[in-house]
Parts: sequence; structure tokens; C-alpha cells
Amino acid sequence: MDRFSQQIAFILELDKLKNIYRQTLVLHEDRQENDAEHSFHLAVMACILAEHAREKVDVLHVMKMVLMHDVVEIDAGDTYCYDEAGNETKAEREQKAAARIFALLPEEQEQEYRGLWEEFEARETPESKFANALDRIHPMLLNYTKGGISWKKHGIHAKQVEARNFGVTNAGSERIGEFAKEIIEAAKSAGMLLE
Amino acid sequence: MDRFSQQIAFILELDKLKNIYRQTLVLHEDRQENDAEHSFHLAVMACILAEHAREKVDVLHVMKMVLMHDVVEIDAGDTYCYDEAGNETKAEREQKAAARIFALLPEEQEQEYRGLWEEFEARETPESKFANALDRIHPMLLNYTKGGISWKKHGIHAKQVEARNFGVTNAGSERIGEFAKEIIEAAKSAGMLLE
Repeated sequence: MDRFSQQIAFILELDKLKNIYRQTLVLHEDRQENDAEHSFHLAVMACILAEHAREKVDVLHVMKMVLMHDVVEIDAGDTYCYDEAGNETKAEREQKAAARIFALLPEEQEQEYRGLWEEFEARETPESKFANALDRIHPMLLNYTKGGISWKKHGIHAKQVEARNFGVTNAGSERIGEFAKEIIEAAKSAGMLLE
Repeated sequence: MDRFSQQIAFILELDKLKNIYRQTLVLHEDRQENDAEHSFHLAVMACILAEHAREKVDVLHVMKMVLMHDVVEIDAGDTYCYDEAGNETKAEREQKAAARIFALLPEEQEQEYRGLWEEFEARETPESKFANALDRIHPMLLNYTKGGISWKKHGIHAKQVEARNFGVTNAGSERIGEFAKEIIEAAKSAGMLLE
């Protein structure tokens, strides 16, 4: 295959993100959100909220990272963040998926895009910390706006949400970290999260 | 409302793009694609295919533009590209929508993002030409890969697809213009488009 055909094959493969459903619901229909929609929303947040990043970030780099951050779920599936058993095997499943999917690209793009995914996972660079803050606040924001349906369904405690999300959001953005706390408090008061 | 709250209001408003359905089908389910999924896919294409732009483009600018290009459809709806009556009233409906939706943002972001949408519509800058090439090739690529279902359903002729898409794709990218021609020829041979 020539270079352009390899790129098109990768683009077509990513259509499968439209069929990977998350626990979060979309706001105006009675259905779960898929990974393509979630990634779209994170990319929008990356440019609209960039000024709130704790350190100055390269916005293009953040946007590419959020577009790629869930690609491995095409093979590995979406693991619900409060599913302990699923999370034990997640890293291995995702590494295998990354090896297959990014290899569809021409070699130097494979390295770049697989590198973006690894950078996202490592949460070390300013761009990765900010991208992870967005990835954590996004489902909280939707879930809270929708009345906490998926927290209630799974009987989630406020402390679980805080333990999972405060440190990560706060590491990427002080303002988004505060916002996570505000959402948790409001959700607790409204009975969406267990005390 | 403070600045951050205005930004969050705009981000939540864009959730509605997940409910605006297009004529194109997703590849691996029996349902129409929505605008959030389409915009996600264009943003991926913008970074993977940037090297094929006819003129050198600012990739971040292209990505922001494709994320915003369908926002007006929240109010104005998706107008099928071969619907002549719908296309007569489209511009006015979309201008009204842009005025309402981008005004959710803080003022200087309103100007920036509304400006991106207008730039996309005008097809004059290198970034806009490339973004429009992606917007035209994307449904052709999905539709062809899926066996031409929506072309067949609407009885579309090869000449209509070529007239609508060759000039625009070719203006943004010589390679994508060629690809549009390749798809049309293959779709004609396979009976997906009428002669």
C-alpha cells in the first residue's frame, strides 16, 4: 500500500470508535455516548479551555492527544473506571491494541501517534496533564448535568469520584480541579452521589 | 456569568451535535452518523492528511475550523447536499444560528470561533480550502466503503457527485481531488451511482 492508502486505512479503522459505548449518557437522547463523540467533545474543550491549563500548553499537541487517547478501545473495549477487575487487565489489552492499530499508519506517523497515546497515559508532560484533566472532567460534567444517572445506577460514592478525579484534574488545571470539587459537592447535595 | 461558566455553557451546548443526524451511515452499525462523530473524523483527517494540503496549512487552525464547521446545524439542522429547496434557505438559517450559539462564549472567543465558521464557509484561505476538501471527501469515503447505500437511496448520479465535490476537493488538495475521482469511478462501475 502507498502512503496515502495507509493513512486512509487508519482513518477508516477509527470509524469503529463510533461503536464503542461509554457509561456516560449524551445529554439530549436516552443513550450512551460513544468514544468518537467523547473525543470530539474533548478536542473542543482543549481549544476553548486552553487558557486554564496549569502550565502553558501546545494546543495542537493536546488536541491530537485527545483525538488518539481512546483509539486502543477499538480492540480493548471501554473499561468502566470503577470496575476494579477490568482495570487489572486493561494495560496489557491496550498495549496490544496500540501495536495493531497505529501500525496501520506510515512508519513515522505510527511513531508519532502511538507516542501521543503513550504520553497521554503517562501523565507527565503539561499537555498530557491538561488532556487528562479534560478526560476526567468531561464525564463528570455530563453526568452531573444529566442528573447523575450513571453514578446512581452504579451506586457510586462521592469519595470514589473525588479520589479518582480531583488529583488528576487539579494537576492539569487549578480551575478545572476546583470545578471538579464544585460538581462533587453539588452532586452530593442533590443525592446523585452517595455520602 | 463569569468567563469559565460561559465557556462551559458553550461546551454543553455543543452536546447537541450528537443528536444532529446526517445522511451518511456509520460503517459498522445500521444508523446515520451524527455531526459530533463527523467532526471528530474530520479533525483526525486534518492531522493525518495535512501533508497533502495544496498550500502549507496551520494544522491547529484547520482542526478548530472543522470542529466548529457544523455548530450552526444545532439550530439550522442538517440540509442534505442534494436538496435544492433546503439549500435556498440554508444561509439565512445558519447565520441566525451562528449569532445565537457563538454568543454563549466570552466576547473575544465568540469573535474567534464565529470567524472560523465564516472562514470555513468562504473557502478562500488555504486552511478553509483544505477543511472543505476534508468535509467533502469524508462522506464520499464512508458512503463508498458502505456500498453506496445513501447514494442509491436518493438515486444520485455520478455527475452530481462530481459537480459538487471535485472542484472543492481539488482546490484543497490535489491528492484528495484525485481520490474523489477514483471513488466516483469505482462507485459508478459498482452501480452505486447512476451514470
